[in-house]
Amino acid sequence: MNKKKILVLGAGRSASALINFLLEQADKLPWFITVSDKNIELAKDKIQSNLHGEAFFIDFQTEPEKFQNYDLIISLLPPSLHFKVAQICLQFNKNLITASYNTPQIESLDAEAKRKKCLIMMECGLDPGIDHITALDLIEEIKHENGKITSFKSYCGGLIAPESDSNLWGYKISWNPRNIVLAGQGGASKFLKNGTIRYLPYHKLFDKTTEISIPQNGIYDGYANRDSMDYLKMYQLPDCQTFIRGTLRKKYFCKAWNFLVYHGLTDDSYYIENLNAHTLKSFVECFFNQEAINETSNIEVINRINELNLFTDEKLPFEKATPAMILQFVIEKKWAMKPGDKDMVVMYHEIEYTKNNEKCIKKSVLIKKGNDKDTAMAQTVGITLGIVSKLFLTNKINKIGVQIPFDSEINKEILSELKKYKIAMKAV
Amino acid sequence: MNKKKILVLGAGRSASALINFLLEQADKLPWFITVSDKNIELAKDKIQSNLHGEAFFIDFQTEPEKFQNYDLIISLLPPSLHFKVAQICLQFNKNLITASYNTPQIESLDAEAKRKKCLIMMECGLDPGIDHITALDLIEEIKHENGKITSFKSYCGGLIAPESDSNLWGYKISWNPRNIVLAGQGGASKFLKNGTIRYLPYHKLFDKTTEISIPQNGIYDGYANRDSMDYLKMYQLPDCQTFIRGTLRKKYFCKAWNFLVYHGLTDDSYYIENLNAHTLKSFVECFFNQEAINETSNIEVINRINELNLFTDEKLPFEKATPAMILQFVIEKKWAMKPGDKDMVVMYHEIEYTKNNEKCIKKSVLIKKGNDKDTAMAQTVGITLGIVSKLFLTNKINKIGVQIPFDSEINKEILSELKKYKIAMKAV
Repeated sequence: MNKKKILVLGAGRSASALINFLLEQADKLPWFITVSDKNIELAKDKIQSNLHGEAFFIDFQTEPEKFQNYDLIISLLPPSLHFKVAQICLQFNKNLITASYNTPQIESLDAEAKRKKCLIMMECGLDPGIDHITALDLIEEIKHENGKITSFKSYCGGLIAPESDSNLWGYKISWNPRNIVLAGQGGASKFLKNGTIRYLPYHKLFDKTTEISIPQNGIYDGYANRDSMDYLKMYQLPDCQTFIRGTLRKKYFCKAWNFLVYHGLTDDSYYIENLNAHTLKSFVECFFNQEAINETSNIEVINRINELNLFTDEKLPFEKATPAMILQFVIEKKWAMKPGDKDMVVMYHEIEYTKNNEKCIKKSVLIKKGNDKDTAMAQTVGITLGIVSKLFLTNKINKIGVQIPFDSEINKEILSELKKYKIAMKAV
Repeated sequence: MNKKKILVLGAGRSASALINFLLEQADKLPWFITVSDKNIELAKDKIQSNLHGEAFFIDFQTEPEKFQNYDLIISLLPPSLHFKVAQICLQFNKNLITASYNTPQIESLDAEAKRKKCLIMMECGLDPGIDHITALDLIEEIKHENGKITSFKSYCGGLIAPESDSNLWGYKISWNPRNIVLAGQGGASKFLKNGTIRYLPYHKLFDKTTEISIPQNGIYDGYANRDSMDYLKMYQLPDCQTFIRGTLRKKYFCKAWNFLVYHGLTDDSYYIENLNAHTLKSFVECFFNQEAINETSNIEVINRINELNLFTDEKLPFEKATPAMILQFVIEKKWAMKPGDKDMVVMYHEIEYTKNNEKCIKKSVLIKKGNDKDTAMAQTVGITLGIVSKLFLTNKINKIGVQIPFDSEINKEILSELKKYKIAMKAV
């Protein structure tokens, strides 16, 4: 029997849970796993001496023909590279699975993918990924009860476990720090509230948050995530008057972060030169000074900004950088995970509906903490990617074209597999 | 004697003062003026039956070779087109004068322009233009007195004359309405304050204004205009601790405008579809509602936003548009100049310096009102462009390459010509 050859692009932060999943399966299934990363040592470390895998670097930009050797490509590369990766997959009639958001650009490859009988499966991670899969499951349950859904709210956050929470922000870096700094900058966020479409520009996003109280868990701030309206159509909820997908942060995080946004420290649109002449203090004072902090009316904001300890004589390790790059440099140190620290993924759905003229509500929550090997973020993203890959390679997913996990039969399979890894929502 | 052939690109809002200046000169000087505009009627109306001119449309994108017929091109086209226009000028060894800001892209043509002995003269309008010319004159005066300049502030505004001021904003549209809506969006503003470089992101720009009290005139709000630091170098003020170029608005305009900025109504980065289904009210309520206005703590802001009368059932004349385009549609009606209305240009320099260990200050102001024929904006921009063109065609400007009006000999000539048109600063 021919072995199925899987190529994993990227061996970074969230790769090991995926790669271990694939290697474990390869004990039973005829699979061979190749891990590619520019940092070959990182890739090798993921495979070690496992006989079902190998590690080297395939530069898809310069040697795309290497894709010919594989049956399935799973990409953990930055989202901006996925259009190019998808194009190359189609060039060589290969299948692609990623955890990134689908885009109109990738969607434009749908006809070609169908013609070539290839699958390009997007949004197979945590958020997006498990959020759709679990939400659609809950929606289906309500529709089966003849419930008419009037409000849908879904929030997810990659947070720090309470036992490892040692700063005022309640936040440590369990995923790509650049994306943490740039979160929310992809244009105005869009959602439906009481029948009206609402647009939130970036500079208003962290100011206009909603308090999200999760039963038996805690109180968070939620901010609107991207364009929820795209999903309203896909979720097929014609009676829904409120529809919002959002991101969770610990209480007061958003208000304090908004101070940094307001003063321009998350700006990635221009470079500042001659940074060698700057200390952290002199750099930050180009944007705000201690007085501006003290004048803030909210003590919770003041305490959090002060905790970042921005007015020091530390030299900046850049010749030139955007404000966002310097803020990233600061938080990478302040919010680093320490040995033994555990992260925590929190996902929460709240759906209001009417049934026999009665108002009803369903709430469900998923809490997953990191373990000694993997962060909760890496587990939830990696295992979902792994499960979808397994279902595809064992012919349980027979779709072609550009897809996201919106098929209820397939989703049930994914949910039951996720449960084996203790990744499941529970009603609250 | 060969006639000098001048091509004026654009016959819009600020063209008539320039064209009349050129036609007047053509009574005495051997000049022939061609006015080009996509709207040929507009161009013809500017020339009428004058024997020294003609009007038609030259599409520089498709028929660049037409530039061959001219000695000098004066462009009133949008700034974004000027790189292309400059490239074509150099292709045919022609000279170019504009009132737009110089850019790194245009600056990159300097060597080629010098090789071809062509002049590309940028920033020959009001702001930029007269501001540099008058400021450098004042700076030279102080340096001659052995003054050491420690602070430089220069503000300019295209406002409405008090006698025509009939709305709370103190503002009517005397120049390009799209640019009014987008003002300040070209990236963070940058200036020097008490020895520290300050960066102001767009969403902070209209919030952090400075009160500018002009002696014998009035009180305004000033907001920082683009990158002042570029000019600090060119102005050669090594001891300057504060250096800011800014824009003037009537008091409270900026705070109220900031309400619109904050809520995303000036955003030009994305389109909203299906606007036919919207009224002005339902569109605005995607961003804020009457309650959000009422909750604003500043009554001056509340009154101004209410005056815009945004919550009406008026249909929107677009299928799709950016929020900025819809705001433009609103203010074009609310802030239209009525017959007889006069605009007013206000320019103000305030320079602090030390002389014999004594602190000194010089303040100067320019006020120019529109007349029955031309707005003050069109006069100040058009006449400056005309004067620079005249000095060039009569060999009083012998420069080549990419230039802005920074030569003190030439500037003195420009100042003395401007005076004939009652455009002059006076000490206050």
